[in-house]
Amino acid sequence: VLTVSEETERGVVERRFDLEVGGERVPGIHWLPEEPAAAHPTVLIGHGGTQHKRVPNVLGLGRMIVRHCGFGAVALDAPGHGERMTDEEREAQRALIAGRTAGPDGAPRLAASDPERRRRMAGAAAQAVTEWKALLDSLQLDDRWGNGPFGYWGVSMGTAFGLPLLASEPRIKAGVLGLGALREEDPRGRQLAESIRQPILFIFQWDDELMTREAGLALWDALGSEEKTMHINPGPHVGVPRFELEASVAFFKRHLSN
Amino acid sequence: VLTVSEETERGVVERRFDLEVGGERVPGIHWLPEEPAAAHPTVLIGHGGTQHKRVPNVLGLGRMIVRHCGFGAVALDAPGHGERMTDEEREAQRALIAGRTAGPDGAPRLAASDPERRRRMAGAAAQAVTEWKALLDSLQLDDRWGNGPFGYWGVSMGTAFGLPLLASEPRIKAGVLGLGALREEDPRGRQLAESIRQPILFIFQWDDELMTREAGLALWDALGSEEKTMHINPGPHVGVPRFELEASVAFFKRHLSN
Repeated sequence: VLTVSEETERGVVERRFDLEVGGERVPGIHWLPEEPAAAHPTVLIGHGGTQHKRVPNVLGLGRMIVRHCGFGAVALDAPGHGERMTDEEREAQRALIAGRTAGPDGAPRLAASDPERRRRMAGAAAQAVTEWKALLDSLQLDDRWGNGPFGYWGVSMGTAFGLPLLASEPRIKAGVLGLGALREEDPRGRQLAESIRQPILFIFQWDDELMTREAGLALWDALGSEEKTMHINPGPHVGVPRFELEASVAFFKRHLSN
Repeated sequence: VLTVSEETERGVVERRFDLEVGGERVPGIHWLPEEPAAAHPTVLIGHGGTQHKRVPNVLGLGRMIVRHCGFGAVALDAPGHGERMTDEEREAQRALIAGRTAGPDGAPRLAASDPERRRRMAGAAAQAVTEWKALLDSLQLDDRWGNGPFGYWGVSMGTAFGLPLLASEPRIKAGVLGLGALREEDPRGRQLAESIRQPILFIFQWDDELMTREAGLALWDALGSEEKTMHINPGPHVGVPRFELEASVAFFKRHLSN
């Protein structure tokens, strides 16, 4: 792990770093309390599709976790996102978003059932899981946060990648997922959900234009976790109320505090 | 309002009082911070069927509201409950509970669709609403808490009574409801739900033996409130996780803080 820069703003240290995974550079951010406890928990934050490691909701959540819990938080640019896009890809994404039917809030409708897109997403998910595991390996080398416990937060694409991550990663002790659904044509999704054991907070939007209510409820229902809570709010895909970030922070505080 | 007794335990004042409503004595408890702010919000707590004003979950919530928010909290014995039962009624209730098929947690199955029971519940609901309104009138006479804002917390029977209360009481600014459902044979329930405007946190148990999932989702869906959140957890009717009391307290803190 190579530190690129480090700045401190109102009690929160923000360290830009690069992680090397299989020869590829994965840019990330580690938010830390300015005066951290000797050993403290860390929450991994997976951003949504078309987003990156420092979009406002990720940055806001990272800072809240540091300020309200005294934990650390880490975000990575997902494969093909943020600094990991060529100018060509960025242009193609803009065109893709502009060309899709907009939802009620102007957000793009991404056809999740498009087979070509699903194949690409599965490849990206496998790559993202490898990178999160490499990040955990690297975090474990430092006594200040190496003993965890670790949490994971990610909705939408962050849940598409979070499901295989939580299912295969016992180092992660609690997860916030959401804006995801169980599609009948995807039996692997059900298997993954059923194999998850960590406590889960699942956030869902009742008027999500990308999935049905039934498919969202079915994903939460399929989770194998003994403790799992679903929070439903009215509104479209890009419309999760800010108080759900506060609920996420309270959830991690309850499950990860040493 | 007549004070019956007053005790203080670890920073929480507990005042037993009697409210006179239409010639009837309604026993209640007012929990207060030992050193309250000059003017502070108050949360009304409606207990469940067969419970009373000082069952563990009501007492625990009252104390949490005082300790975590610095607000006051008030519980009343509902009509035909607690101190408002004759020995004969108490005996009849015991027999009723013993005779019902027990749910997975041993809680009685109460046949909500029984027409005789529904008629009795409607009468009790009207009486309970009258009593809560009389309580608000009486609270408003004291400057320490008279300006509110007021909140309401009540699940199961507390929701059966809370729906008509919130629908007709603009002095109540936010409500936690739950363990309730919209029955097709009860169009008045839908009307009530649709006329509610206060922010609502709705708590639901996914394996509630007294109602279907669809009917529970339908009640939340019908609420006319702009802000409404549904929290779903696995488990039976009597099995709401303790962290939902913490979520309730956070909800009131967000909506009622001056």
